[in-house]
Amino acid sequence: MSILRSRFKSAAGDELARYAASLETDLLMLEEDITASLAHARMLGRQGIISAVESSSLADGLIQMLADYKAGHWQPDETEEDIHMAVEAELTRRLGETGKKLHTARSRNDQVAVDVRLWLKKSLAQYRAALLKLIGVLLDRIEYDGQILMPGYTHLQRGQPILLGHHLLAHIWPMTRDLQRLNSLTERLNLSPLGACALAGTSFPTDRYFVAQELEFGGIVENAMDAVASRDVFQEAAAVCAIAMSGLSRLAEEMVLWSAAEFNFVRLDESHTTGSSIMPQKRNPDSAELIRGKSARVIGDLQTLLSLVRSLPLAYNRDLQEDKAALFDAVLITTDSFSLMAGMIEKAQFNKDRFEKELYADFCLATDWADYLAQHGVPFREAYKIVAEVVQYCEQNGGNFSLLTAEKAGEFHPLLKANLADLLDPRQSVARRNSAGGTAWPEILRQVALLRAEL
Amino acid sequence: MSILRSRFKSAAGDELARYAASLETDLLMLEEDITASLAHARMLGRQGIISAVESSSLADGLIQMLADYKAGHWQPDETEEDIHMAVEAELTRRLGETGKKLHTARSRNDQVAVDVRLWLKKSLAQYRAALLKLIGVLLDRIEYDGQILMPGYTHLQRGQPILLGHHLLAHIWPMTRDLQRLNSLTERLNLSPLGACALAGTSFPTDRYFVAQELEFGGIVENAMDAVASRDVFQEAAAVCAIAMSGLSRLAEEMVLWSAAEFNFVRLDESHTTGSSIMPQKRNPDSAELIRGKSARVIGDLQTLLSLVRSLPLAYNRDLQEDKAALFDAVLITTDSFSLMAGMIEKAQFNKDRFEKELYADFCLATDWADYLAQHGVPFREAYKIVAEVVQYCEQNGGNFSLLTAEKAGEFHPLLKANLADLLDPRQSVARRNSAGGTAWPEILRQVALLRAEL
Amino acid sequence: MSILRSRFKSAAGDELARYAASLETDLLMLEEDITASLAHARMLGRQGIISAVESSSLADGLIQMLADYKAGHWQPDETEEDIHMAVEAELTRRLGETGKKLHTARSRNDQVAVDVRLWLKKSLAQYRAALLKLIGVLLDRIEYDGQILMPGYTHLQRGQPILLGHHLLAHIWPMTRDLQRLNSLTERLNLSPLGACALAGTSFPTDRYFVAQELEFGGIVENAMDAVASRDVFQEAAAVCAIAMSGLSRLAEEMVLWSAAEFNFVRLDESHTTGSSIMPQKRNPDSAELIRGKSARVIGDLQTLLSLVRSLPLAYNRDLQEDKAALFDAVLITTDSFSLMAGMIEKAQFNKDRFEKELYADFCLATDWADYLAQHGVPFREAYKIVAEVVQYCEQNGGNFSLLTAEKAGEFHPLLKANLADLLDPRQSVARRNSAGGTAWPEILRQVALLRAEL
Amino acid sequence: MSILRSRFKSAAGDELARYAASLETDLLMLEEDITASLAHARMLGRQGIISAVESSSLADGLIQMLADYKAGHWQPDETEEDIHMAVEAELTRRLGETGKKLHTARSRNDQVAVDVRLWLKKSLAQYRAALLKLIGVLLDRIEYDGQILMPGYTHLQRGQPILLGHHLLAHIWPMTRDLQRLNSLTERLNLSPLGACALAGTSFPTDRYFVAQELEFGGIVENAMDAVASRDVFQEAAAVCAIAMSGLSRLAEEMVLWSAAEFNFVRLDESHTTGSSIMPQKRNPDSAELIRGKSARVIGDLQTLLSLVRSLPLAYNRDLQEDKAALFDAVLITTDSFSLMAGMIEKAQFNKDRFEKELYADFCLATDWADYLAQHGVPFREAYKIVAEVVQYCEQNGGNFSLLTAEKAGEFHPLLKANLADLLDPRQSVARRNSAGGTAWPEILRQVALLRAEL
Repeated sequence: MSILRSRFKSAAGDELARYAASLETDLLMLEEDITASLAHARMLGRQGIISAVESSSLADGLIQMLADYKAGHWQPDETEEDIHMAVEAELTRRLGETGKKLHTARSRNDQVAVDVRLWLKKSLAQYRAALLKLIGVLLDRIEYDGQILMPGYTHLQRGQPILLGHHLLAHIWPMTRDLQRLNSLTERLNLSPLGACALAGTSFPTDRYFVAQELEFGGIVENAMDAVASRDVFQEAAAVCAIAMSGLSRLAEEMVLWSAAEFNFVRLDESHTTGSSIMPQKRNPDSAELIRGKSARVIGDLQTLLSLVRSLPLAYNRDLQEDKAALFDAVLITTDSFSLMAGMIEKAQFNKDRFEKELYADFCLATDWADYLAQHGVPFREAYKIVAEVVQYCEQNGGNFSLLTAEKAGEFHPLLKANLADLLDPRQSVARRNSAGGTAWPEILRQVALLRAEL
Repeated sequence: MSILRSRFKSAAGDELARYAASLETDLLMLEEDITASLAHARMLGRQGIISAVESSSLADGLIQMLADYKAGHWQPDETEEDIHMAVEAELTRRLGETGKKLHTARSRNDQVAVDVRLWLKKSLAQYRAALLKLIGVLLDRIEYDGQILMPGYTHLQRGQPILLGHHLLAHIWPMTRDLQRLNSLTERLNLSPLGACALAGTSFPTDRYFVAQELEFGGIVENAMDAVASRDVFQEAAAVCAIAMSGLSRLAEEMVLWSAAEFNFVRLDESHTTGSSIMPQKRNPDSAELIRGKSARVIGDLQTLLSLVRSLPLAYNRDLQEDKAALFDAVLITTDSFSLMAGMIEKAQFNKDRFEKELYADFCLATDWADYLAQHGVPFREAYKIVAEVVQYCEQNGGNFSLLTAEKAGEFHPLLKANLADLLDPRQSVARRNSAGGTAWPEILRQVALLRAEL
Repeated sequence: MSILRSRFKSAAGDELARYAASLETDLLMLEEDITASLAHARMLGRQGIISAVESSSLADGLIQMLADYKAGHWQPDETEEDIHMAVEAELTRRLGETGKKLHTARSRNDQVAVDVRLWLKKSLAQYRAALLKLIGVLLDRIEYDGQILMPGYTHLQRGQPILLGHHLLAHIWPMTRDLQRLNSLTERLNLSPLGACALAGTSFPTDRYFVAQELEFGGIVENAMDAVASRDVFQEAAAVCAIAMSGLSRLAEEMVLWSAAEFNFVRLDESHTTGSSIMPQKRNPDSAELIRGKSARVIGDLQTLLSLVRSLPLAYNRDLQEDKAALFDAVLITTDSFSLMAGMIEKAQFNKDRFEKELYADFCLATDWADYLAQHGVPFREAYKIVAEVVQYCEQNGGNFSLLTAEKAGEFHPLLKANLADLLDPRQSVARRNSAGGTAWPEILRQVALLRAEL
Repeated sequence: MSILRSRFKSAAGDELARYAASLETDLLMLEEDITASLAHARMLGRQGIISAVESSSLADGLIQMLADYKAGHWQPDETEEDIHMAVEAELTRRLGETGKKLHTARSRNDQVAVDVRLWLKKSLAQYRAALLKLIGVLLDRIEYDGQILMPGYTHLQRGQPILLGHHLLAHIWPMTRDLQRLNSLTERLNLSPLGACALAGTSFPTDRYFVAQELEFGGIVENAMDAVASRDVFQEAAAVCAIAMSGLSRLAEEMVLWSAAEFNFVRLDESHTTGSSIMPQKRNPDSAELIRGKSARVIGDLQTLLSLVRSLPLAYNRDLQEDKAALFDAVLITTDSFSLMAGMIEKAQFNKDRFEKELYADFCLATDWADYLAQHGVPFREAYKIVAEVVQYCEQNGGNFSLLTAEKAGEFHPLLKANLADLLDPRQSVARRNSAGGTAWPEILRQVALLRAEL
């Protein structure tokens, strides 16, 4: 138990110590903690708050400790209350009295705040890389497989024929918005809270801007109390993750559906599937299922962060310690999920012929028929009605549009007689939908080029 | 029941119709629905998809319907499935066959998508105004009352003396980030989905850019399937609201605390309080409590939106209808809450003398004493320990630092003897904390100026 | 504005009044409010707190008001703060001074608490009926269609052949637990809070037990402060609903999947599907999708209720007004969803032949093969390995087990040679799984009988 | 990598293995896994599915492994996929071929299901003990400190004088309902899923009832698919925890409030508080804050479990692996929180004199005055109005009821003149509120006796 508790006759209860323990989570940001202390020590010396010798000594000690930690020669003492105390205690063991000067003109509140921000900057950069990787893999896949014909679904019912490229783009665009959200968040994240001290700033002549620069922040959190009490930027980080995972889970869902025997549209690589302990034939899409499942966990993490902060008075309250487990979990899961999905898509094989024949004369061409009539002067709602009758006729006769002869088609509307062959062909249907953002191949290529240029 | 169902022998069951009813929510965006149809009708004529005469007729009809609606002369028929069908049915009643041409080259999917975006643009602008209003009121309050002395709390324990202005700034800065988040969201929101049709675009020679311009969007949602299937921007809007409400609830919490008899630091205006049905003396801070309570609802709305979309395959699924109730609720509550808080703060009276005497010689000056020792060469951890002993001595004698004579103080450390008077004065303590973002009055003024300039 | 506010010079602000308005939600429990007032008025007379004449007068007035309300002759005045005040104001209008005596020995806090409990008792009984209806429909369906052969899925991959009855039972059993949870909740709900007054009870000689009996409660909430401050029973009601909806959404998901063209296993009745505004062939499973979607909303409602109450000090706080919208929403949606699902299942047609041929010699018989070997002395893990090799052989030759001749099968293991025909037949596979709870038909019938007897 | 993967040319990808790893969570139920395997092995022998010798050998091997594990002589191999495989692999290493027979007539699905249920039974019993401990501590406290006078709050405004015992009972009663919920849950939990195998039962002549008995379950989960696919009982366990924590957080909130300088009503023991790294005078109520904070985490865990399961088709999907981390977290945190709170309350000191004088003639007696008038024939609403005028008069003269002389009081209403002394005394006010559940001391003692008898 640390010096902090020395005022109290008895040490903080063992039960509280266990309940409050956060070492495991804290360890994730040990490197950040030392790095921030290093910048702080340099500033203290530069401002004359401690002597140049002391400052150098602290800096050297910290650098050495970080090296020792990375090399496995030093581990924080688990009996310390948290890593901040563990670092300081070790430093004091190494440097003697000078070590006790490190905590001048700062508090644990701003120290934790800067550690989390440094950790987030690093970790969100990794998420960003995973996100870009997946977008890249999807774009490559479109160039390779983008012209595969498939049904476009609404309500999981076949709606209109589309190209796989069109479908995959509908997953990429939300990811570009995930990226925008991440970039926007970074503006608010990239500010240093260090120097705010407990909540009110300090009477020491600190230089918070120097520290910010040392730590590669773009500026400082202007208000000291805001710096230690606010959690909105962490909530935002979790929200950015939860929204991204909500979208990614939809792609995961489709990987599960499409690899079912009934769809049989994609074959995931064995490295992304597992077998069963009693069913030797199984090729289970575990990667996709786990991503889908873990998206629920990130949503739960966000819920924790929003509930946690709600209605807390300013400034720091110990409740806020609980923010890290949820926040770190959300960021790490999101990063790993995008990374895993990139590998899954990269190695997946699409069954190119799956729908090619099946969509010929399929009812999912019905909108084309209605549009065709409308383009020749029939009011759309009227055209819709006529085609509905054709569909009903074919259904009652147990088939699809291929049941129709030109004559029979003409009975529903003369215009249907002439162009029947074109109207039965799903590839032509796709080619016709060349409005901006439509499923026609040139529109897909246009979007791919646009995305390649932007990213 | 509408033409849509005409293919089916029986109309969709009454039970489904009741269960699916969304008229109440939809009515909120009736104006947007007509406005979007108007732009669509003009585009259809401009592109020659319908004749110029038909286009004019549709446009005139829609303009007249909107006027009639606003004047209370027309109400959507509640027996229609939704407002989109109600508008079209009325238009057809007025214009005959031409009315049926309005739905050419669009679907309900992109129609709903554009309606919600138009509604959000309008409604988020109102939220933005409420947010700016509250920031303005808080800044005014700082200029008026900002030098009131109060304890700065951590763990709801008195930590260090601060100025009210410092505290209020800690609420304003997160609001400026709420504003940034809102601005960032607008980029993604300000794109037109209209023309995406069901999911694949259309074979009609539409001009989506013209429609976007007419509706004052900054561009189009590039991919048709993304335009109708994605909900990430709506989730983001709800997240922006939930984060903002999470922060606002903290200010609300403090209004509740501070108006309790025990704190007695603020007196809310009667227009923001209520009485009790059996306790005539009560002056309950209902406004603040309701804001605090409704923040939980906005968090619930966000959870609904995240759970709802999770693991849905593309493109549109009827589940997504449920997005609107939660989304609209979140945005409207947030707007009203910021607006109500602005009025509450504007009229609140702070009890200026509440803490002035009480903080003299209070233990919340202890950090100052430790800093003072550290500034004179005592290692901080050592200084901390000395002051802790002084605190313990005073506590054991049932008082605070005012118990100390200069001599007694000197026994703990000679340096304490000299400067005792300064060290007992909370106003001097505040003035000393003049590091960047500290609670000293010049730092507060600097931030106010910065904020005034930015907003 | 009501008498309640009369102490204040200015009425509560219009903005607060609008923000706080809960009339719409309150109206749902107007009948309960009057019923509770009736019991209270009778008790006041019986205890001599008011005279017998006054008591009769109040009772008659309340009975008449309720009749007038039901007949549409009276509506609560919307300018009153809430329905409680509206009822009392109208009563005073009708009865004069006597009306003002109704509020003796109670407060709005216990009045609202009793109203909500009465409403919940009524509404949960309706949910109970809907739940029992659905269970009944599913049991009927099992007796009719239970022997339909289908693949049992894990990971949405075909695992082992099962009977539809086995699958539907896996939905029924959780519903019986939903029923247990509901029954258990009722114990805690069925206690009267009336008479608790604001939080401390009263000095009037009330008889809370008489009131409880009049309102058909099983007892009283023992502690007055608990009666008005707690919300755990309402949270539990929402949790019971959220868990039930989470389960029901799984059945809804399967209705969506199974009515997709790729599965083609169920055909929903037209009364539970809708068409598309531009795709005339669509038969969208909207009922199932909406149930699935609304389950997210009930989850959001529960989150609201949990976040709302978290960390509120006792006793009543105005935040708690927000409990009703979420609670009522959860209960009503859940009831309607179970009711709609009952109709959907009742009218759905299963495609009996869908999997009959397809499962012959399918790999989903693989476990049977392994079990067969194990039953003849091969260690299970060894048997598993052998069958995996057979599967691999057949896959590489592009087929399933039907590729095997007896001789070829014998090459993998001699035991496979003899019994090949039986091992290829999915109906025999199903019949063999006759362990307790297995998919064999007698086990299904046993469970159906058990459930019929219990319910 | 285990035998399970042997069908695949390449082992499941390293990335998936890392992403899917659940060893840490699984380890919590290693003992349960071995215990369940033991019962299974015995059943296999008893039913003649394996030989008696094999059964004994497996049983002995498992018993030895458990002993070795507890003694620290054996640890599951981390390179195995999960603990189930690790146990089996070790068993096979020890016993040779016989070890491979353990997995006969079961699957990982029912194995995991039974492990979690065994873990929950054990862990919820611990939670139950912690809950009972806290109730006991609170009851003891009432007997010791229950007559301390304090304000009863609504809206955090002083409402009516009450006794501390009345307030603490309002925390105990919800806990008795937490206990009821826990007991009710146990009925559904206490059923064995083992023997359900993958989803369809088995063709081996197993005896699931014997296994259930061995494992001290009250019966079996009747349907095999329900046994492996359902998660409603786990969701219920998390809901029971979340509701309990929501309630406990309210007591925690009050410990924070009451230990603030402004309330100064409770002094937490040093073992439940901590200091500050820069503010030596601080005695922060960290225990209470952490409990409050962790309640948000349990709410998030429940959200994860509800979202996770929503809309998953039957039967097992890999998503469901994610249930354990959230479930275990919720149960463990809840247990520790109740335990910590019991210690906190046990050692807390209430400031007995805090409100004694302050409540004399306080406005929180106003309801008494109104009730007094009403009891002497003034209609309640009229009485309320008169007292409101008295309050207003005293407020305007800057004091409370002690400002009034009997004469002055008589001016507002003659009845007030006579009984003024009694009406100013908060102790008498408390004594008068002796209705069932009221704050009078005999009512408190009655409830304590009732609770002692029940528990």
